[in-house]
Amino acid sequence: MSEPRTVELYWEPGSTNSYFALRLIHPILARTGARLALHPFNLGHVFRLHGYTLMDEPPAKIANRKRDLQRWAERHALPFRFPGRFPIKTSRALRGSLAMRRWHLELPFVDAVMTAYWERDDASIADYAGLRPIAAALGVDPAEFEALSESDEIRAELIESTDRGLARGVFGAPSFIVGEELFWGKDRLDFVEEALLRKR
Amino acid sequence: MSEPRTVELYWEPGSTNSYFALRLIHPILARTGARLALHPFNLGHVFRLHGYTLMDEPPAKIANRKRDLQRWAERHALPFRFPGRFPIKTSRALRGSLAMRRWHLELPFVDAVMTAYWERDDASIADYAGLRPIAAALGVDPAEFEALSESDEIRAELIESTDRGLARGVFGAPSFIVGEELFWGKDRLDFVEEALLRKR
Repeated sequence: MSEPRTVELYWEPGSTNSYFALRLIHPILARTGARLALHPFNLGHVFRLHGYTLMDEPPAKIANRKRDLQRWAERHALPFRFPGRFPIKTSRALRGSLAMRRWHLELPFVDAVMTAYWERDDASIADYAGLRPIAAALGVDPAEFEALSESDEIRAELIESTDRGLARGVFGAPSFIVGEELFWGKDRLDFVEEALLRKR
Repeated sequence: MSEPRTVELYWEPGSTNSYFALRLIHPILARTGARLALHPFNLGHVFRLHGYTLMDEPPAKIANRKRDLQRWAERHALPFRFPGRFPIKTSRALRGSLAMRRWHLELPFVDAVMTAYWERDDASIADYAGLRPIAAALGVDPAEFEALSESDEIRAELIESTDRGLARGVFGAPSFIVGEELFWGKDRLDFVEEALLRKR
């Protein structure tokens, strides 16, 4: 028998569609038996690199995006609400996820960060005031968590993760990679599932 | 019994996703019994208005867009191929569709324009050299078709159609309107179908 396939997910806590991707990937993992590999992707850095500013978009497009997100939330019965403070600084949460790998708690940490920001309008995840309680609730010493998240080693890992994504053709979040195929957006999960089920 | 619902479609011949939308809307019309109302939308004009340039996007995003289009073509078994000449001038085809309303042949004309450009790599639809044979094949006198397409009346109608779209919140193509709800993109057709089936 072949080993289970892997779906790699480049995510960013400040990306609404990454929130949806992280919620909607779970049933796909269950159906396909695939494993998930998370890669933090510093989208603020990438947008600066590409000269892209979300709020420069036409007001009608931004309005439609918000309505579209409500529709997705309704369809999947998710308690999503658009946060009052947006955008926020996300580099600490991104680094925190890498720190939590040491305790094998990366996914529950990321899920909790997404719950705080995109379901409870809790923008404190921009700083350790909001991140420490999440680590503590997962049984990790908050001081140790913060020290590791601020370490040079973890800082270098985040840069490497983002740069590796860019080198692989990632330009936004969420992006999924299955084998050599890159899929962008929460609205391509059906293609991701097909790719995971495809014979190799 | 209530009368059949209408799905309004703002389309543009130079928009790849409008090609897919026009192909994929037919089974939805069949399943829902809805009627289709076409509105030409001069996307080149709108992009100039919004200061958007497709080719300014990061190369990785453009590459992924092309791969994504291939996947959609494969999934729906469409003989799509990306045209050699892109973008092209589309205002004559847009006006031609309005002219063809006089003969109640708007939809077959639009479908034929899409087939020429997106399946046969025939960029001649930018001009009457390519549009006249399409009108002729539908039984319309090509000289009459061209004269009407160039008339002040039809020119005004295209401006009005695009401006009316903008006033209703349309910012890209394809855009679908069902009642008061606007849906953008070929990847929202499942939401469009749901809206058409919803009780009023």
